Amino acid sequence: SLSRDLDLPSEQGCLSIVVLGASGDLAKKKTFPALYHLFEQGFIQSGEVHIFGYARSNLSDNGLRERIRGYLKGAPEEGLSEFLQLIKYVSGSYDNGEGFEKLNKAISEYEASSKSGSYRRLFYLALPPSVYPSVCKMIRTYCMNPSSHPGWTRVIVEKPFGKDLDSAEELSAQLGELFEEHQLYRIDHYLGKELVQNLLVLRFANRLFLPLWNRDNIDNIQVIINYYYLLQVFCLVAMEKPVSLKPEHIRDEKVKVLQSVNPIKPEEVVLGQYDGYKDDPTVPDDSNTPTFASVVLRVHNERWEGVPFILKAGKALSSRKAEVRVQFKDVPGDIYKCKKQGRNEFVIRLQPLEAMYMKLTVKKPGLEMATEQSELDLSYGMRYQNVKIPEAYERLILDTIRGDQQHFVRRDELKAAWQIFTPLLHDIDDGKLKAIPYQPGSRGPKEADELSERVGYVQTHGYIWVPPTLA
Amino acid sequence: SLSRDLDLPSEQGCLSIVVLGASGDLAKKKTFPALYHLFEQGFIQSGEVHIFGYARSNLSDNGLRERIRGYLKGAPEEGLSEFLQLIKYVSGSYDNGEGFEKLNKAISEYEASSKSGSYRRLFYLALPPSVYPSVCKMIRTYCMNPSSHPGWTRVIVEKPFGKDLDSAEELSAQLGELFEEHQLYRIDHYLGKELVQNLLVLRFANRLFLPLWNRDNIDNIQVIINYYYLLQVFCLVAMEKPVSLKPEHIRDEKVKVLQSVNPIKPEEVVLGQYDGYKDDPTVPDDSNTPTFASVVLRVHNERWEGVPFILKAGKALSSRKAEVRVQFKDVPGDIYKCKKQGRNEFVIRLQPLEAMYMKLTVKKPGLEMATEQSELDLSYGMRYQNVKIPEAYERLILDTIRGDQQHFVRRDELKAAWQIFTPLLHDIDDGKLKAIPYQPGSRGPKEADELSERVGYVQTHGYIWVPPTLA
Amino acid sequence: SLSRDLDLPSEQGCLSIVVLGASGDLAKKKTFPALYHLFEQGFIQSGEVHIFGYARSNLSDNGLRERIRGYLKGAPEEGLSEFLQLIKYVSGSYDNGEGFEKLNKAISEYEASSKSGSYRRLFYLALPPSVYPSVCKMIRTYCMNPSSHPGWTRVIVEKPFGKDLDSAEELSAQLGELFEEHQLYRIDHYLGKELVQNLLVLRFANRLFLPLWNRDNIDNIQVIINYYYLLQVFCLVAMEKPVSLKPEHIRDEKVKVLQSVNPIKPEEVVLGQYDGYKDDPTVPDDSNTPTFASVVLRVHNERWEGVPFILKAGKALSSRKAEVRVQFKDVPGDIYKCKKQGRNEFVIRLQPLEAMYMKLTVKKPGLEMATEQSELDLSYGMRYQNVKIPEAYERLILDTIRGDQQHFVRRDELKAAWQIFTPLLHDIDDGKLKAIPYQPGSRGPKEADELSERVGYVQTHGYIWVPPTLA
Amino acid sequence: SLSRDLDLPSEQGCLSIVVLGASGDLAKKKTFPALYHLFEQGFIQSGEVHIFGYARSNLSDNGLRERIRGYLKGAPEEGLSEFLQLIKYVSGSYDNGEGFEKLNKAISEYEASSKSGSYRRLFYLALPPSVYPSVCKMIRTYCMNPSSHPGWTRVIVEKPFGKDLDSAEELSAQLGELFEEHQLYRIDHYLGKELVQNLLVLRFANRLFLPLWNRDNIDNIQVIINYYYLLQVFCLVAMEKPVSLKPEHIRDEKVKVLQSVNPIKPEEVVLGQYDGYKDDPTVPDDSNTPTFASVVLRVHNERWEGVPFILKAGKALSSRKAEVRVQFKDVPGDIYKCKKQGRNEFVIRLQPLEAMYMKLTVKKPGLEMATEQSELDLSYGMRYQNVKIPEAYERLILDTIRGDQQHFVRRDELKAAWQIFTPLLHDIDDGKLKAIPYQPGSRGPKEADELSERVGYVQTHGYIWVPPTLA
Repeated sequence: SLSRDLDLPSEQGCLSIVVLGASGDLAKKKTFPALYHLFEQGFIQSGEVHIFGYARSNLSDNGLRERIRGYLKGAPEEGLSEFLQLIKYVSGSYDNGEGFEKLNKAISEYEASSKSGSYRRLFYLALPPSVYPSVCKMIRTYCMNPSSHPGWTRVIVEKPFGKDLDSAEELSAQLGELFEEHQLYRIDHYLGKELVQNLLVLRFANRLFLPLWNRDNIDNIQVIINYYYLLQVFCLVAMEKPVSLKPEHIRDEKVKVLQSVNPIKPEEVVLGQYDGYKDDPTVPDDSNTPTFASVVLRVHNERWEGVPFILKAGKALSSRKAEVRVQFKDVPGDIYKCKKQGRNEFVIRLQPLEAMYMKLTVKKPGLEMATEQSELDLSYGMRYQNVKIPEAYERLILDTIRGDQQHFVRRDELKAAWQIFTPLLHDIDDGKLKAIPYQPGSRGPKEADELSERVGYVQTHGYIWVPPTLA
Repeated sequence: SLSRDLDLPSEQGCLSIVVLGASGDLAKKKTFPALYHLFEQGFIQSGEVHIFGYARSNLSDNGLRERIRGYLKGAPEEGLSEFLQLIKYVSGSYDNGEGFEKLNKAISEYEASSKSGSYRRLFYLALPPSVYPSVCKMIRTYCMNPSSHPGWTRVIVEKPFGKDLDSAEELSAQLGELFEEHQLYRIDHYLGKELVQNLLVLRFANRLFLPLWNRDNIDNIQVIINYYYLLQVFCLVAMEKPVSLKPEHIRDEKVKVLQSVNPIKPEEVVLGQYDGYKDDPTVPDDSNTPTFASVVLRVHNERWEGVPFILKAGKALSSRKAEVRVQFKDVPGDIYKCKKQGRNEFVIRLQPLEAMYMKLTVKKPGLEMATEQSELDLSYGMRYQNVKIPEAYERLILDTIRGDQQHFVRRDELKAAWQIFTPLLHDIDDGKLKAIPYQPGSRGPKEADELSERVGYVQTHGYIWVPPTLA
Repeated sequence: SLSRDLDLPSEQGCLSIVVLGASGDLAKKKTFPALYHLFEQGFIQSGEVHIFGYARSNLSDNGLRERIRGYLKGAPEEGLSEFLQLIKYVSGSYDNGEGFEKLNKAISEYEASSKSGSYRRLFYLALPPSVYPSVCKMIRTYCMNPSSHPGWTRVIVEKPFGKDLDSAEELSAQLGELFEEHQLYRIDHYLGKELVQNLLVLRFANRLFLPLWNRDNIDNIQVIINYYYLLQVFCLVAMEKPVSLKPEHIRDEKVKVLQSVNPIKPEEVVLGQYDGYKDDPTVPDDSNTPTFASVVLRVHNERWEGVPFILKAGKALSSRKAEVRVQFKDVPGDIYKCKKQGRNEFVIRLQPLEAMYMKLTVKKPGLEMATEQSELDLSYGMRYQNVKIPEAYERLILDTIRGDQQHFVRRDELKAAWQIFTPLLHDIDDGKLKAIPYQPGSRGPKEADELSERVGYVQTHGYIWVPPTLA
Repeated sequence: SLSRDLDLPSEQGCLSIVVLGASGDLAKKKTFPALYHLFEQGFIQSGEVHIFGYARSNLSDNGLRERIRGYLKGAPEEGLSEFLQLIKYVSGSYDNGEGFEKLNKAISEYEASSKSGSYRRLFYLALPPSVYPSVCKMIRTYCMNPSSHPGWTRVIVEKPFGKDLDSAEELSAQLGELFEEHQLYRIDHYLGKELVQNLLVLRFANRLFLPLWNRDNIDNIQVIINYYYLLQVFCLVAMEKPVSLKPEHIRDEKVKVLQSVNPIKPEEVVLGQYDGYKDDPTVPDDSNTPTFASVVLRVHNERWEGVPFILKAGKALSSRKAEVRVQFKDVPGDIYKCKKQGRNEFVIRLQPLEAMYMKLTVKKPGLEMATEQSELDLSYGMRYQNVKIPEAYERLILDTIRGDQQHFVRRDELKAAWQIFTPLLHDIDDGKLKAIPYQPGSRGPKEADELSERVGYVQTHGYIWVPPTLA
């Protein structure tokens, strides 16, 4: 496994995983199930791990365990019981030392009972960002791994980190005073997705893509995905090859490509708001909040100058697809009139079904010399029928235990990302950019399609990708 | 259809198709069935076509029709009857004017009965090459389209054309005195295969391949196929892009790449003869005739210098596959240690099942960051389940009717091709190159695999392409 | 020398050079002096050559010799006398057998006196094209190398060949009935120029230009030169690399690129006529004859799609320069703001001084980090101070003697060239395209500069190339 | 000027330049003259600058001034006097607070007398590295810009920084505790050379080099230069294009390429020691100290894999040239047999005369089609006859004043550089690598030439570059 080449120390010793916000939805639906699956596959083991739930609610250990059990239906009883026995519950408030002292005591007792000399403490903040600073201060004050011992303290926080450049920098500064960068794991659960992780492998482990992946050959790239993940996926598509797979090298390159993004031009933005959005009584009648955005990023470097990255995200659309679509340029000196067939495209579909395919032009089978579009296809579901594609959360928690920060967002990366979108956000707030109404269940405002077309995207009409199916 | 762009005149008028050697195996198994399928699909129609069988045997029209019927089992009776009624039989010898005068009379009567002013005569020589000169002389003397009439006379001859450069040039010279180059159609039935025809579309109608198809990115190319077709397929893989799809432009480029081939080096040839070959009583005990050959071609031009084309053909091997396998170079500055996974390859499989796929490296699904080989796949059988892939002979006869010589071998092309292999053939005859014995049912002499490896081919161990199937 | 690699047979035997139109200006100013220089350098020698002047005038041998001597002032007397003694004069008309019989007799006598078995006859038509057909017919009838003898007959004709596609094809057909293509040498004296011949060496013998010479890197190319030579120089700049240096391979590629030229668009043509042109009493008052043209050629192939070739020619302009100017694209992802400095250019200057230089951006020497344009330079006059750059005519006559047709225009090349310009010429004749007036001594119509700019050319302001000089 | 785009604040206020080691050779020969030239050109002005010399010697202000005057012969008296009046002398030891208190007092007095609110203090350590830690500690303790005031304190230190990885890291750690990275300027005076600074401009401001500068086109690169500067120049030749010209972006890329260097293989190292080196009585009789080294660096990234960087440095050689020589690959599919002419090369000569030229193959002028090597040339001396090429020290001191750290060595860069050479140095110390004897005045050990040839360098025989001269 390549992980072993990353200079990550192979560690042993007792591991305490603390889930803060243990009685909340995120914890129950995502965090504990992910921990269970890691347990089930042997990545964390009874001998060396304890799990601590912490929340304000008054709950017994068993109370928490039963709640969790409700989200693990179908799990074989024997393993499940063993897993649940690893969990303890501690109750306390988030801004008061008392609870955290109790928590530290529980962890310390467990550590003392262990023969291992190395104490590892992982804090998972399944909590709203507003309480991050106070909770982190409590952890820093009461719950750090004792310096007398080898081991570490790591803190996982969830997106969103701020709402614009200033608020993000402020939060970063607050956490930065409490923890070193290598102790902080800013989770972005999309980075844990199988095909997202595959992106770098595809780009850098295949000679095939080496001469193709540049402005000479690519006309435009679309990234259609949940708003929160747009820039992360953009980075993976656009970044230069890192010196090595070391997390810092990968993150260096992400920062670099983010810094190369030109300021967004207002004429390359389309915002939308679906009809009915303001029917929600909590939404003000004059709300300009977009529920749809299409934004063109321009990267000022040797590889990408002139190639628009069309980023799209939206709610209440006809399709919930998430994909990266790389559209190649036309063939120069075309002798096949293949332009009308549509362009070559390389598509990585993240949702609804993970798949990837290469759209190309082939001879239409038959006696006539005519061409048509077909594709080279790798559909994950079909190819990998018996392989369990892991959930993003499992992977990211495991990465944290291992100290691999590759799939987490670094402070300067966060800053560079906010620098791109913040002027846009302020223009929305100031009403300089207006959201265009669109029908729920539509493709979004037609102005978005017009924008894509204007910057070069050519839609292939009459072509529908039919994923291969197993009868 | 692109055919219509080729400046080929759309023709009408009566069409006489003459099958010489009508009672032989080739005619019955291939020529007449191909004609039937063209008829069935409406490419030739009762109103405007007559088919004349000619051979030495004494046969009635119905006698020939019944023989043909035996090779068209399963055809719906109505259409079949209509087709068979188009066929007439004329008997005569191949070196004597009498029979051909009779043949000309039959054709002329049919033409006179037609209202069309344009007379088109197509002669298909389903005969051994030894009789080509005499038969062509007869056609030239007795059976040409009368100059008083618009129309044409075209002659289809089959491979092989000669057995070395001198004999091929002699045959060319003999036919060249009788017919113009544009009247001669040297058939190479492999050129009629769907995926062979697809090769040029793939290469030149897809931006994808533009930056890839050269010495910078390709390490080696293997062509494994029946001996007779090696150079034709080599040309399609290696030729430059033609000025247009006009047959002459395509054939210009084929000649050009053949002329750029360096003389073959003896150390880049492996010949084999399977054990048991000499058991055949017709084979001399000291026969050096190879039943297997692996030969490396080197192309001296900007695109290909340094890229070995490994051409392989053989009998009695473990596998009867025919394919073009383009192996890409390793990734420079590899950060994924993907070398051990095997290289990217683009494979066009002609046999047993027509398919094409791109082998690439993906992330192995799962929590570990490990890579493995997978592929992007286009399996014709699966993708085109309801499409009839036409037989090569149908296509080529249709091309002849249309005057499209693209898939036929031009005289200078034939010459250039023989110039490449003739020194080798003479060395075999002179015993300078010896055939190495190999076991029937094996991969051929191990020296062939060693040669491939020596010139750069890297076999991917442990990887087996599993064509997708429909349950 | 590479000449020796071209499979050109090294020949010996007596050589008769016949200058038809011997008393005319072209003969005296160019043909005879060129012959003298070949003689002087030992390329033709007294033992094996005789020169025959032929014209209508009544002249003695010495009369012709004295006329020629007048154009060879400064030549050392000894060699000059020896040269002049090789010349004989024959007088006769151009359309009548008698003179040519006399000429043949003179040649035959010389040949008979020689011991050599090989008779070589070279006819140089220093005559207007209107008499080509009749003169060629005379040569064909009376003056061919006797078939009983080894050797050859070759005919050199001068441009222009026709005035549009039809007239050129008619002339070609007339000559084609009399001589084989390999006997005809259509001279284009620009192809004999040192830097023109250098063009192919530069492009194909230097790795440097390999990755640069294409649409990815070149923005536009200007060819500024005498109208008659525009297409020849265009071919050398734009053609693909030939299979070898064999003249046929080179001419194959020239034809190919000419065939790839798209029809010229009227909006990409600017014609001009200088004020005062119609003052010439022989010019009609309503003349639309252009004395200036700027035309954009578009090449429909993989290398050049999208790169305009701006061809310019004109009379009475401010500058008489002739040059090829290759302008590269801007640097993508520019960090130096070098756009404002001007683009990289590679310039081959044919006139007034042969030179070539590469314009590039360097750091402006000094403490400030600023950039400026400079150039890498190869000025022929300076680099090659002691080398005699041969005249074009010498080279081309020598090529003819050697049978190297590389620098002569082939029939299909001529046709392809006329196909490009003929529609334009007809549009001028029909008055559909109007010549715009311009001042003598100006740069031509300003619309021409606007056209260049519109298709992409960026002029570097404030940059003047100063050729290095020797003090 | 591009400097203004670098986000460097334009500063004003009083500037104190302190030269520590003022009575030593470096100070007198380089530092003070450089300061004078900056003064002379107006980059530092009497109104706002004071210069303080500090050393152990007992000297008056005038004493120091007179010493400096001795190194500025030929300077016009008026300006020189004005410059010298700016200089004051303070004497004191390097490890004792007293002297530095005195120094601080002198500076503060000057600052107090100035009306400017901004105090800038630049300390130039013209001292051996062994005293850096103690001197820096003194500066930190006694002489920092008062925090009550805007302005800064910057410290310039000279190479060498350590003698291997450990000693360099130790020194870095010591200085790192005293100063922030942005306060430290590790001078490498080669980085101040005009053509070295030009390297990045050439590479990144010229489209010409964009497609050429990679493993596809470059065969090998030689860097021949003083040992201390090898890696710096290597970085400039090999680094990727930075995000911008900001010093941190440039230094990021330098670090990146240093980190991509593979460990040096012993078989790719040749060490030499000239005969007579051990005659020096201070050298031990069994000294293995090399006076010559040729080392091949291999860069493990996409651009450079497979391209050897041949680094060479040596003493007592026949030539004292310093240059970067980029040798391109052979032309693939060569039709000109140009291989024997020698390869294309791009040469940047730093010494003896600054020049750059591109070696290419041209047609040999004359009637034969033969090729030869020529070059496109830009000789600085000739092109820029009236331009003063600034001395490296001037530039670097000015950069320090401006806060531009681009041409200074960053800590992580220093570390990465030492990581490359340290194993080699230890092998020399351990006697595992032996220095081969060579004759003074020779090219060094012949094994070095053999190494170059083995890794691919092809010497052009019979070619001598003749720099153009002005008569």
